[in-house]
Amino acid sequence: MTTDGVRLLAVGTSLPGAPVDNAMLARHFGQDAVWEQWIEAFIGTDTRHLAIDLDSGGLLYTLADLAETAGLRALEAANLGPGDIDVVVMGTATPDALMPATVNMVADRLGIDGVPTYQLQSGCTGAFQALDVARNTLLAGHRNALVLGGDVCTRIFGADTDLTALAPEELVNIVLFGDGAGAAVLTTEDRPGAPILHPVSTRLVGLGRTPGQVLEWFTKHERGDDRPPVTEDYKRIEELVPELAEDMLAAIVDDLGWKREELDYLLPPQLSGRMTRRITDRLGVPSATEVSCVSETGNTSNSLPFLQIERLLPRLRAGERAVAVAVESSKWIRAGLALEGV
Amino acid sequence: MTTDGVRLLAVGTSLPGAPVDNAMLARHFGQDAVWEQWIEAFIGTDTRHLAIDLDSGGLLYTLADLAETAGLRALEAANLGPGDIDVVVMGTATPDALMPATVNMVADRLGIDGVPTYQLQSGCTGAFQALDVARNTLLAGHRNALVLGGDVCTRIFGADTDLTALAPEELVNIVLFGDGAGAAVLTTEDRPGAPILHPVSTRLVGLGRTPGQVLEWFTKHERGDDRPPVTEDYKRIEELVPELAEDMLAAIVDDLGWKREELDYLLPPQLSGRMTRRITDRLGVPSATEVSCVSETGNTSNSLPFLQIERLLPRLRAGERAVAVAVESSKWIRAGLALEGV
Repeated sequence: MTTDGVRLLAVGTSLPGAPVDNAMLARHFGQDAVWEQWIEAFIGTDTRHLAIDLDSGGLLYTLADLAETAGLRALEAANLGPGDIDVVVMGTATPDALMPATVNMVADRLGIDGVPTYQLQSGCTGAFQALDVARNTLLAGHRNALVLGGDVCTRIFGADTDLTALAPEELVNIVLFGDGAGAAVLTTEDRPGAPILHPVSTRLVGLGRTPGQVLEWFTKHERGDDRPPVTEDYKRIEELVPELAEDMLAAIVDDLGWKREELDYLLPPQLSGRMTRRITDRLGVPSATEVSCVSETGNTSNSLPFLQIERLLPRLRAGERAVAVAVESSKWIRAGLALEGV
Repeated sequence: MTTDGVRLLAVGTSLPGAPVDNAMLARHFGQDAVWEQWIEAFIGTDTRHLAIDLDSGGLLYTLADLAETAGLRALEAANLGPGDIDVVVMGTATPDALMPATVNMVADRLGIDGVPTYQLQSGCTGAFQALDVARNTLLAGHRNALVLGGDVCTRIFGADTDLTALAPEELVNIVLFGDGAGAAVLTTEDRPGAPILHPVSTRLVGLGRTPGQVLEWFTKHERGDDRPPVTEDYKRIEELVPELAEDMLAAIVDDLGWKREELDYLLPPQLSGRMTRRITDRLGVPSATEVSCVSETGNTSNSLPFLQIERLLPRLRAGERAVAVAVESSKWIRAGLALEGV
């Protein structure tokens, strides 16, 4: 085992189909140029990838499809086979089914068997939780972990939505989210060039706070039920996410005995292009290069940290320090991780 | 920290309402005495507790309600307050919503905040996975963990089911399952009388195997969808569960350097009264007292190990050894744990 604890050996990601831009969305939903400009100004997201076919509303990619591809790419990049993996951990808010857990369907497709598997139910901090659980499991005596994260957000919204019937706070979800999956291989072996993954921090900070985002599922006989599938308090999210991101960054830098101005890279929360700019401005780490993906991928929830780390890895040199921060507005969770180049 | 690693400090459980017997179910579903006898002969489950009101079909208890009560009882039994808990881990197949994860709603109600929380999506092995993740998290440097497990299975089936329209393999679910929640407090402190929780084993053994149980969720716009909400391959379950239970028992005894004939207590899988008898006969550990609950509680999925451990604890004396085994037929997972009296 390396004296550095756990290393991040490789990542892989998978985004469904070609990027869908705002003009394409506007055309599909029968909206005009004003709506397109509204997306640009108020959301700041240019493109996203969708797992559903806009024309038929049919699902082209399941979460298992996307996670399988991401997992395969991560294994290939790590130069490892399925037999080398000792534990698989996945984070998602939108599993394909309640049972079997999607992680097990993906493990089967990748040829992984006879190992512990865990699937964490969470929104934007699920991938951090998965990395955290994988790291702790490795330190309890394993060698290599495959960590997966992903969401098929558009399954919730559907392509046949009548936008004219939607309130603005519902409308925003159609353009805000994207679909995707990511994967990382962690190891306790001392592999040259693989950055150190320091302890991951995830903290529930929801005491007494009303959930900022609720995502419901329905049983067959609840079909007459009029609960809205998604409710979001965007005003509260805009207020609280920057504050919690700030707390998280301060805590993670402090825990490591680092200084904020020593950071080389910052991977900020990826709620939307506009929110990410606001948060990054507030975090105020001028020394750090921002690594973001949201304006191209949309908010892909549990895929985001993998998409960001994929962009970070080719740039991270020995001795360089990167911090990633995420905030989940469901019951309010803040999460952060630090990578250090070797 | 104790030299024994992790101790199980206390458990608590919660079952909704009064027990519902087979005669009451028969009356509600308009069935006759033959059906009642069929339940006794082919299922072997006498009573279960239901979170739904049979008359109205309405939900009387959410998973958060049940888990809150179980958690509170476990904390009280451990003589700990919310501020003593360093991590909360929950296992369930039927979360109240996709977001927020139910674990976070329960933590809020119990007054727990500022700690990592994890919710594992799984069927009958989810509670073992939760104990496993909690144990590894504690060993990474925490003191006390609250572990929760539970399911509101009847939410899937509903009380307004027309039994005459159901195939036998669907009918069986109505009588097989029950609702409930359980909780345990784990600690790394050396507490007199608290049994040792040895490393928990959970293993995916699904490679190339078709899922034995599938549980779907639906989005609002998928309501017209004709996917069945639950599919089960009972023939395959009857074949494979005893075999996997046998493998698990052999592995866990072997890992600890124990002998099967030295076991004092056996907590076997709790699929149904009849299946549990079959599995226990096959496991063949005459030295061990069986600790089961399924004939009174039904199959309560992620609550089961807590209900069994609650019955075990008052009997487990210093030096005595207990093994619990579970098999999840979704994508085939086997799980086991060992407790040792001190």
